[in-house]
Amino acid sequence: MKASNFFVSTYKEAPADAEVVSHQLMMRAGLIRRVSAGIYNYMPMGLRVLHKVERIVREEMNRAGAVEMAMPVVQPGELWQETGRFEKMGAELLRVKDRHDRDFVIQPTSEEVVTDVARNELRSYKQLPVNFYQIQTKFRDERRPRFGLMRGREFIMKDAYSFDKDPAAAQVSYQTMRQAYRQIFDRFGLRYRAVAADSGAIGGDLSEEFQVIAATGEDAIIYCPESDYAANIEKAEALPPAQARAQASAALTKTPTPSKSTCADVAQLLSVPLQKTVKSLVLATDSVDEVGEPAGVQVWLVLLRGDHDMNEVKVSKIQGLDAGFRFATETEIVAHFGARPGYLGPIGLKLPVKIVADREVAVMSDWICGANEADFHFTGVNWGRDLPEPDFVADVRNVVVGDRSPDGKGLLAIERGIEVGHIFYLGTKYSKAMNATFLDETGKPALFEMGCYGIGVSRLPAAAVEQNHDERGIIWPDAIAPFTLVICPIGMDRSEPVREAAQQLHAQLQSAGVDVILDDRGGRPGAMFADWELIGVPHRVVISERNLNEGQLEYQHRRQTESQKVALTDVDAFLREQGVF
Amino acid sequence: MKASNFFVSTYKEAPADAEVVSHQLMMRAGLIRRVSAGIYNYMPMGLRVLHKVERIVREEMNRAGAVEMAMPVVQPGELWQETGRFEKMGAELLRVKDRHDRDFVIQPTSEEVVTDVARNELRSYKQLPVNFYQIQTKFRDERRPRFGLMRGREFIMKDAYSFDKDPAAAQVSYQTMRQAYRQIFDRFGLRYRAVAADSGAIGGDLSEEFQVIAATGEDAIIYCPESDYAANIEKAEALPPAQARAQASAALTKTPTPSKSTCADVAQLLSVPLQKTVKSLVLATDSVDEVGEPAGVQVWLVLLRGDHDMNEVKVSKIQGLDAGFRFATETEIVAHFGARPGYLGPIGLKLPVKIVADREVAVMSDWICGANEADFHFTGVNWGRDLPEPDFVADVRNVVVGDRSPDGKGLLAIERGIEVGHIFYLGTKYSKAMNATFLDETGKPALFEMGCYGIGVSRLPAAAVEQNHDERGIIWPDAIAPFTLVICPIGMDRSEPVREAAQQLHAQLQSAGVDVILDDRGGRPGAMFADWELIGVPHRVVISERNLNEGQLEYQHRRQTESQKVALTDVDAFLREQGVF
Repeated sequence: MKASNFFVSTYKEAPADAEVVSHQLMMRAGLIRRVSAGIYNYMPMGLRVLHKVERIVREEMNRAGAVEMAMPVVQPGELWQETGRFEKMGAELLRVKDRHDRDFVIQPTSEEVVTDVARNELRSYKQLPVNFYQIQTKFRDERRPRFGLMRGREFIMKDAYSFDKDPAAAQVSYQTMRQAYRQIFDRFGLRYRAVAADSGAIGGDLSEEFQVIAATGEDAIIYCPESDYAANIEKAEALPPAQARAQASAALTKTPTPSKSTCADVAQLLSVPLQKTVKSLVLATDSVDEVGEPAGVQVWLVLLRGDHDMNEVKVSKIQGLDAGFRFATETEIVAHFGARPGYLGPIGLKLPVKIVADREVAVMSDWICGANEADFHFTGVNWGRDLPEPDFVADVRNVVVGDRSPDGKGLLAIERGIEVGHIFYLGTKYSKAMNATFLDETGKPALFEMGCYGIGVSRLPAAAVEQNHDERGIIWPDAIAPFTLVICPIGMDRSEPVREAAQQLHAQLQSAGVDVILDDRGGRPGAMFADWELIGVPHRVVISERNLNEGQLEYQHRRQTESQKVALTDVDAFLREQGVF
Repeated sequence: MKASNFFVSTYKEAPADAEVVSHQLMMRAGLIRRVSAGIYNYMPMGLRVLHKVERIVREEMNRAGAVEMAMPVVQPGELWQETGRFEKMGAELLRVKDRHDRDFVIQPTSEEVVTDVARNELRSYKQLPVNFYQIQTKFRDERRPRFGLMRGREFIMKDAYSFDKDPAAAQVSYQTMRQAYRQIFDRFGLRYRAVAADSGAIGGDLSEEFQVIAATGEDAIIYCPESDYAANIEKAEALPPAQARAQASAALTKTPTPSKSTCADVAQLLSVPLQKTVKSLVLATDSVDEVGEPAGVQVWLVLLRGDHDMNEVKVSKIQGLDAGFRFATETEIVAHFGARPGYLGPIGLKLPVKIVADREVAVMSDWICGANEADFHFTGVNWGRDLPEPDFVADVRNVVVGDRSPDGKGLLAIERGIEVGHIFYLGTKYSKAMNATFLDETGKPALFEMGCYGIGVSRLPAAAVEQNHDERGIIWPDAIAPFTLVICPIGMDRSEPVREAAQQLHAQLQSAGVDVILDDRGGRPGAMFADWELIGVPHRVVISERNLNEGQLEYQHRRQTESQKVALTDVDAFLREQGVF
């Protein structure tokens, strides 16, 4: 490719709304252009990156036995009504009516359509397993689209859906995808972690996120430096405390704590470690009678150590809370505790409340909690003596740095990541809702066991930039760079030897299959170098008359700060060494 | 590819709603599946065809210097309001409101977005010419979606948009695309014609349609078998008659024609050739005053020979009709003519009417037309003697078979075609509406001269099937076949030699880059052959034990009815001869 036949458009400044570095650099490098909030043009330079991501995904999905198809962007509402997602998805789902006033949605994913394909096309267990995938435009009407391609509204996703005859076979399909995803992410050339994730109501361990490591990532990745354990914060288990509960040594005392409504404030006031305090969070569940009318409210008190945070996913696994819960209203709190938030605790309740103690709280002694009276806390609280044992003891907190790794191999650390892939065992959630069956070995209809597997194709380049950039711009891994190598000739318009050498190298690399661009725009060296450093092409060759006279050219990798001279006769071997071929 | 890793799903019967052969065969062969009216899944077999079409389009567009980008499917309404198309496009444009109640459209084309790109990115004439293209999902909410991919609602289109500094440069861009389109359509391996089309208000000859020839095509293609003249029906000019107007020889006579309201009926009643009759079509134009209020109606009478049809595009080029016209209402007709349609004519009008005579009518003498009185016609009508010369004489009819070719090289013929490409010089229509300018050589802002160039990527396979099929199914040209060659082993599960030979040939062809599929599903020969004939894979190799024993295999091209034996030692050379490599 010659730059004069391509479209290069760089800016010195990023637009004011670009808050994160990937958004800033992708705008400045001319990879994307904003059309509306969360909606972008993929400019020629950016589309090349997307196409390379797509090619890697496609090759590895095919290799893993998945079959590509394409489902429509505009999908009929009826299918979405079958699973209830037409209503459940809320404002994020872009709904539209056609000229005949029929409901359609702009696809955010394709579970409904692909399950419809399966129930029409897959009639026998002999046709299974099947894994359909597509690389398609998706839309989610995010409330706050931002960060460029990181949280856009229109985006490109690879979504795959496996259909199996039973859970064991579905496990195999899942593991095949797990392997394929490792292959894919290895090929991208990014640092990433495959992270255990929560698989919701289905349970089990069949859900993993693929996180690109970046200091700016939204997600906390919990990992163990001494092992290969990695999980997201929802999933990572806080092991039961190693120590048993100590004997009570202090008396229960109602202590004035005027205006001290947080654990931190109380600990400071009383000069005790934060770890001696317990925070009280009040939840509620609503029950309904047999005709669906509201039939009552159950209030729950979740107790956590003062320095810990509640993990809602873990809470949602407790029996009674697993059908959905909400935070209690202030009215409900006052009715049950006789006090307002800030001074709540499990002692002296007005109405029945179910008590959930985090594993860590369950082994505490001589602890501190609210006295259910404004401006007072209890100190010296002890289980059994001052209050009954809790109704539930469970892991309901987020892990923190230094917690023991669940695999017993060391202590947990935390780093930040950007989720760009997710694989998930769905079970029969969709096949049941849509009555999607096949005939099993006994000739009876059985529900498909499904899995789904996503990769954020248009998010990946943004994650790559968050991970790989410096003050001069982007640094692409070779595999997804818009061009692998740029030839920068100095004074090409004045110097016949430079022009000739540049064009010859360009032709030679191109015919060897190298994705090369020759900058024949005739700009000044400084501006030319700045452009390609901003754009982030990993390999650069500079051709100047002075170097040619010495039988040389200059090479510099984007990660290097100094160029090196290479003899013209060695160029081929040298570039091969750099991985250009 | 092995069929066991792919997804083959064929049906014996087409669904009842499949009216045309391409729709029937594409459904039966499992290339597409209906999701909703005019909305389809591209199944794995169909997607392979689409990808091959896309690759050819992409390669030739790149070769022609166009640059690929991707514009969003969901586009902001504001841009569409700038050109007025947000309202003008009517119900065909799918409009949607986002969660903040802002207007968006699902793109049917991208003139607005690409013009917005140009006005932001192209600042100087030095950056021109630029030709941006995309291959993207489009949506048009057709009133009557039908014929499968032929007239779908969601479809894939390649749309390109060129930006030039002046009309001469735009001509060059247009001609470059014209050449690229010929390359593209040549590579598809289909019989097609590049057909001159009308370029609307812009005028000139810079619009061509690319029509795939098919007896079932919707469009009439006018061509001259003795030359390379070809045009669509809107565009093809009917030359001025060669003969001059003859002298009047009959007297004007009011003749009873009870209940004979069509030219054909009148000609039959009076035993004269249809060519002696003249049909009267009444049009109307509405004028408005300076504040936009309706200010009056002008009625027009278009006179055509009884055997000719009116051409609305040609009519719309007549001064006074060029701002838009409609057919007159019955009330307007009665007021101006004193009679109802069926007995109208240009003699004895009640109110002023502008008369437009087709060139052919203008040279007629002793002709027949309605007498503006029910059940009466005039015979022996002559211009000048019985009525004044017409206000306008123009070519306002469709050409018919046997008309002289406009290039003077023979007589016109007509065949049917399916439009799959259209190239168009747009001038400044969009740049003006959106104030899209660049700085020209003199440093002054100038409007971009634009062109647009479309290919119906998802329509093309349907057109290919309309052109290439037989009673057994589809016959794909090699270039866009889902697979180039299928290996059908007979009794692969029983015979080790068959399995070995099949797998070896498969591996050998695959490593030579042939797009080959091995049918390892283990079906019976009859069903296996029927599947691949329906699907339309052009080359088939059958491997059986009997043939292997003779050191042979069987080859058959999809167009042939008999197979031929090929020595195993000659297979490579033989397949090369068949164009498989």
